[in-house]
Order: sequence, then C-alpha cells, then structure tokens
Amino acid sequence: MNEPKSLFLTDNSLGIATDLYQLTMAAGYFEQKMQDIATFELSIRHLPKNRSYLVTAGLEQALHYLTHITFSPEAIEFLRRLPIFSQVSQKFFEYLRNFAFSGRVYAMPEGTIAFADEPLLRVTAPIIETQIVETYLLSTINFQTSIATKASRVVYAALGREVIDFGTRRAHGPQAGVLAARACYIGGCKGTSNVFSACELDIPAMGTIAHSWIMAFENEQDSFCKFHEIFPDNTTLLIDTYDTLAGARHAAMIGKKLKGIRIDSGNLSELSRKVRKILDTEGLHHVKIIASGDLNENRIDNLLRNDAPIDSFGVGTEMVTSKDAPALGGVYKLVEQEHNGKSIPRMKFSEDKLTYPCKKQVYRTIDKAGNFVEDVIGLEGENLQGIPLLIPVIKNGEMCYDLPTIHEIQHTTSNNLAHLPEPFKRLTDAETYPVTKSQGLEAKRHEAEKILRDINIP
Amino acid sequence: MNEPKSLFLTDNSLGIATDLYQLTMAAGYFEQKMQDIATFELSIRHLPKNRSYLVTAGLEQALHYLTHITFSPEAIEFLRRLPIFSQVSQKFFEYLRNFAFSGRVYAMPEGTIAFADEPLLRVTAPIIETQIVETYLLSTINFQTSIATKASRVVYAALGREVIDFGTRRAHGPQAGVLAARACYIGGCKGTSNVFSACELDIPAMGTIAHSWIMAFENEQDSFCKFHEIFPDNTTLLIDTYDTLAGARHAAMIGKKLKGIRIDSGNLSELSRKVRKILDTEGLHHVKIIASGDLNENRIDNLLRNDAPIDSFGVGTEMVTSKDAPALGGVYKLVEQEHNGKSIPRMKFSEDKLTYPCKKQVYRTIDKAGNFVEDVIGLEGENLQGIPLLIPVIKNGEMCYDLPTIHEIQHTTSNNLAHLPEPFKRLTDAETYPVTKSQGLEAKRHEAEKILRDINIP
Repeated sequence: MNEPKSLFLTDNSLGIATDLYQLTMAAGYFEQKMQDIATFELSIRHLPKNRSYLVTAGLEQALHYLTHITFSPEAIEFLRRLPIFSQVSQKFFEYLRNFAFSGRVYAMPEGTIAFADEPLLRVTAPIIETQIVETYLLSTINFQTSIATKASRVVYAALGREVIDFGTRRAHGPQAGVLAARACYIGGCKGTSNVFSACELDIPAMGTIAHSWIMAFENEQDSFCKFHEIFPDNTTLLIDTYDTLAGARHAAMIGKKLKGIRIDSGNLSELSRKVRKILDTEGLHHVKIIASGDLNENRIDNLLRNDAPIDSFGVGTEMVTSKDAPALGGVYKLVEQEHNGKSIPRMKFSEDKLTYPCKKQVYRTIDKAGNFVEDVIGLEGENLQGIPLLIPVIKNGEMCYDLPTIHEIQHTTSNNLAHLPEPFKRLTDAETYPVTKSQGLEAKRHEAEKILRDINIP
Repeated sequence: MNEPKSLFLTDNSLGIATDLYQLTMAAGYFEQKMQDIATFELSIRHLPKNRSYLVTAGLEQALHYLTHITFSPEAIEFLRRLPIFSQVSQKFFEYLRNFAFSGRVYAMPEGTIAFADEPLLRVTAPIIETQIVETYLLSTINFQTSIATKASRVVYAALGREVIDFGTRRAHGPQAGVLAARACYIGGCKGTSNVFSACELDIPAMGTIAHSWIMAFENEQDSFCKFHEIFPDNTTLLIDTYDTLAGARHAAMIGKKLKGIRIDSGNLSELSRKVRKILDTEGLHHVKIIASGDLNENRIDNLLRNDAPIDSFGVGTEMVTSKDAPALGGVYKLVEQEHNGKSIPRMKFSEDKLTYPCKKQVYRTIDKAGNFVEDVIGLEGENLQGIPLLIPVIKNGEMCYDLPTIHEIQHTTSNNLAHLPEPFKRLTDAETYPVTKSQGLEAKRHEAEKILRDINIP
C-alpha cells in the first residue's frame, strides 16, 4: 500500500520550489557563460479594488529562503532526467550541487506601508541566482502582504476592539493558515487560534469552544457547567447552538465567574444587544461579547455604526483568504545588468505591461508631525528628499539585518498606519496616496526605451 | 542576530497544527472522562457563486495527517505553559504524549463529483480525537477541493486544448503553490510549472521562458538564438517583451526547429491570429501558440468562441487562488455519539445553520449510460438505491485504502465529469443538480430536533 504524501516543503527542497522556467533559464545562462550581475525588483503592479495601501509582510520567510536555498542530490537527479535538460552539460548540475545565494538584497522592513509600483524588495546577484529565486520570493511576499493588508483593514474597522484570527480552517491549506496567522498579527490582530503559529511566533493563542462541545452533552446547561468546572477562570461560552437567547440565559447561570460569550450566527447586531441586556440584568456587566461568523471589515464597520455591544471579533475566512482581493499582482522584474563592467538599464514595454529600468529607491516625505505626505520612486543614490524605505538586509548572501520581533513588526505597522492620513486609509472611497516617479527615473526610462525600440522593433 | 524562521509544518508539529479551542475541548472531554465514540462529518455548506459541483481533492494529505499526527515534547510543553491549561491535570498532557488517531474514516475518493451538504469525509473515533483533527482536515479538503473544482472549469473551457498550472507565484505561499499544482492536475491540467510538485507527484513539469531572458541579451533576436542553441528541441519563445508581432517574426527566424511561442499580454484573440499568420507564412504550421496572462475559464471561453488559434493555456493567479470564489464554506459537524452503548443523534439548529444528525451516506443514481441522475443523502445502512460514494479509508487508525496514483485520480475526475450532464456543469447559469435527503434522514432529523428543542429551549 502506498504511503500518503504530506508534500511538505523542507529546507532540503528549496532549490526546486520554483517554476521550471527559472531553472531552464538558469541552465541557459550557465551554458552561455553569462555571469552578469543582475538586479531584479519585486513590486505590486496595481492595488486591488478596495485597497488603498499595502502592509508589507513576508520578508522574514523570504530571508530564510535566500539564506537556506540548496539543491538536494535527489532534486538534481530529477532535473537531470527531465527531457528539456537532456542537452545541458554536466557542469550545470555540478553548479547546482554547490548552489548558494551570494547576492545582496534591499527590502522594506515588514510593517512598512507601501503602494503600487514601489519596489518592496531588490535583489542583486549573478543573473542565475536572481532568476532562480523569483517564484518563491513572489509567492512569499505576495501572500503575507495581501493578508497583513486585509487584516489591517479589519482591525481599523474594529475601532480598538480586539480582532482574533480564527481562519486556519479556511486558509489555503494548513501551512497557509500558519503564515496567515503571522500576517494577521502584523496587520494588528491580538492573537490567533492557530496553536502552531502561536507557539512558533510567541503570539497569543486564543479561542473559545465549538458547537460540538455543547452538542456532546445532554443539554446546553450541562455542557456549560462542565466546561466551567474544568476552566473556571477561562469560561467563554458559545451560545448559539440551539437558541441564542436561551443560550445567553444558560450562560448567565454560571454567574460572576463567567468571562465571555460568543455568538456565531444570526443577526449579530440585534442578538448582541439582546444578549447584553440578559447579561446586564443578571449583573454580569463584565462579561465580554465575542462575535464571529463570516465577518469582514465592512460587516464590523456596520455593526459598530449600529452600536452593537460587541467587545471582540473572531475573523476567519474573509481575512485569511483576503476574500475580496485574494491575490496581489506582484511582479519581479529585471531592471539593471552589469555587463563587462558596464551598467545597462533593463525594461520591458509590451502593450499593457511597462516596467521602469534601473535600481530604484522609494523616498517618503513626512511632515513635522510624522505624517506621510508623498512618495517618490527615484533612482538609488539620486539626490532626493525624503526617507529611503529600502534598507540592506542581505550582503554577500548573508543576513546583515537585525530581525525585528513580531511584536516590533506589529508596532511598526500600527505606527505607520497612524501616520497615513485618514483619506488614504478609509475603508471605502479612499483617496489615492501620491506616488510619483522622479525626473531622473523618467529620463532613464525614456533613454532606455528609445534604445530598446530602435534595436528590437524594425 | 536572530535566525529567520521558515514556519514550515513538519510531521512533528501536526498535533498543534490546529485551533486552540480543539485542544481546550480535548482537555475538557479528558477531564470529564468522556470517552464517547463520536462521529463528525465534513461537508460544504453552500456552493459558491459560479460553482455547480465540486471536484473532491485533498484526501491523500488528510490521510497523511491522520496517520502521522503526534504531539512533540516541545508542543506539549508549550501547551502546559498556556494560562488556559493551568488547571488541567498532568494526565491530559501524558495522554497527548501518547496520542495517535485510532478511529475509522469514510471518504469520497479524490476526483469524485460532489455537491453542497454531502458529507465528503466522515470520522468516527473517541470524541477527543475527532475534535482535535477538525481544523487540519477542513483546511486540507477545503483548499484542494476548491482548486480542483476551479481547474476543472478552466479545463472545460479549454475544449481539449492543454491547460498548464503557472500559478505558484500568486498562490497563498509556496506550500499552497505545491498543493494547488496537485489539485490543478486532479482537475485536469496537463502539467505544472512547479518543479517540486512535478518531482514529488510525478506529473509533467512544464514552462517556457520569462521576459528577463529576453531582456538580459542585447536584442531579442540574439536572446532567441542563444536559447535555441541550448535547447534545440525545446525552443518555445516568449514574444511580447517589446512588440509581439516583431517578436513573432524574430521567433520565426529560428525556422523549422521552433516548437512554440508564448504571448503573455495584450489582446490575445487579435494577437494570436496575427502571430499565427506570421508563422504560417513562414511555413511554421507546426509551431504551437501558448497564451497566458490573467486567464480564467471565462476568458478562455471567449477566446475560443472567437476562434483564437491558441493551442495551450498557461493559467496562474485565477486558478490557484480560485479567485472568484477563494474559499469554500466547509464545516465539520458532530452528527452522532455513542454514549453508554446507546447511539445518540446530534445536530444544531441556530437560525441560519441547521445540521443533519446521524452517520450519513451519499447514494448516487446513474442511468444505463453511466450518467448521473440524482443524489440522495441518506442514513448509513439505509436501504436506498444508488451507488454509495463514501468508502472506508482508515480503520483502527490505519489506512485500509489503496491510494490511487495522481494519474488515476485525474482519470476519475474526467470520467466523472463526462457523466455529469451538460446543464449541471456549464460555465454560467448551470442548473442545480438534484440532491435530496432521504425520508429516513428527515425523520431522524425531526425526532432529534424535537428532543433537543424540548430540552434546551425553555
């Protein structure tokens, strides 16, 4: 009988955790003896609908990847047997056997607020290396940035009430649930239901009980009492298994030691009000009401506009899949190449997909209060005002960056968002934050485009 | 300097790859000495918009999980230190130390066509075990089923032309890309760009070249020739870096050995026609045209309705995130409990979330040609016509199921879809396939609901 496969990625499999064409091109560069130093930049081409900024996330896992990527003997053997590699020389596979990333990387620290077209990450290395790492970097940064951004919107809507990530069951596989928990925390959540994430990341593990607990006992009251017996100081009860208001009354029987109740269905606005009344009538003013069930930033916003007396929100599916915008259009483009000691700007300009050449930097202007005024995407080293957002994180293949803790990253996010003026972050009809390209960059683009058009378009 | 974390799941971390409340409830059941055998069923509550059926996928990874779940000493230590577990006895942690899944599982084989409300998986085990495994099972089955279903729609739209998964970079992290590649293959794709998936699953690794290859050389012609030198029998060229029609002419210069070209931007219908003409004028009728760039089933359908001469489709973001329906509402509900030798039906009926009690089976009626006629969700063992879709896969915690190969699963899918009549699978305005509940099941539901209402709602 065959053993079922987990398909888990491991450090050992990082080399081939990429698209085939990266390795085909790598072999091609190798055989062509092309040892040019290339620079690629990762950016998000357009912000999706309902997003007016990005909260960058995923850098730590990207750094893990870049400092651990290798090709196992099994992986190399697999590649060697692929028909497409049949005419590739043995030396290429020897090269892979000794492969390590040797380049340098600049990136925006996690929790930075970014916008469309801004490079979030810049990789400079021998062209083979820059090429191979594209897929993994995109997937890592795209996903966590997408979820941290979504989470920040949910947290914004909750007006200071706590938001908890309850999403693993609906994430794109158990591993995505783990990464989503991290990104949600970066976006401002108070904790996660995901125990592995809580353990690995040292963030609060949170949760209540499920309907099955209630259903597993003869009646609701009994199930509540039994739970309270075991968890006298942590009794938060789910009250909507059979009838929410009856459930509230049953929960209230626990008395002063009751900590919270959760409502997971129905009209949350109306039910939370009625439940609050039941609790208050019993003198249980301290008991917290937790709401859950297909929540997102708009529903939370509506609930709070209706003064629903909810103290905390458990948010799942919508947050961990960024359901209204489940993918970011992240791209990773060659922008510059050092060939025979000369630096050549690189770009493409097929109809709908223009890219800008040269190593870039993002310069953010802030006012005296620290509020964001505008960003300029300029050339690296260009004499421009503003704070440069990309900082060195890897040099000669080694980390040169003191990783912040996840708590520090969360703080970075909230601090940054506090300085993004209201019109640019409101949930709907947000204004477009001003991002322009520097004159220096535009000039380089025109120059490079003219040369490339003359050469390539007869 | 802190080491960056990969956050990779491993067999060692499976025990805590779950929601905290599963472990809280587990501790609760343990302390209450509740050793009842419980049965939970996993089903998808509603089909999302634009989905008229599901292609089940993810069972193999679910089986890996159930046969490998353990709690490492570190995981147990982490739990023990959580404040919520402070009053839980030492014996519970000893129980976790020896934890293994000991139950039995029924499931629909992967590639089965399923519908809303039908149990896809049924777990029977001591209640603690059934509870702990909920989160991971949901996340695994939800995701792969969602992607296999989406992929089957894309493949359907392609009318026999090949569809290749190009999506890893936009998947929800690199691991989701691996699982998506598997699910896309189950849904009917010809191969994947994901090398790790191709290697692990023994499915075709496919791909072409990226814009960076073209940009890395002095001019497009040069880049094409250099690629052809290295890969003379596998020369598929990307032609839209600077100007698609000029690119087509440059590619045609390769001559008879040219295998294919790829267009990744612009009006694919118009460009593919013009490019076909350029190739045909040069006598290159055999050269295949591959299209990519934000494709989905509707765009492919439109292209082919316009007779766009495209031979194969590289599909990414939209497929691997199931972008128009990025989550399935999978639930896992207690349906039956053996208490003191008596079998008790379990259900809940909060306003919008009714569940049906008892162990169920799905009975599918097919006609003489093998076409699906209707499904009845009935009681396990009920005397009903039709083929039972749930089969035993785990007994006493051990696999009792001969895992099919991924190729066999792909065949199961296509064979099943061939027998799902057209009205139920067309891309838009599909009819609702008839699924009813048996009289026996409805009777059990009424009976159980009456008892529970009398007990719980004063």
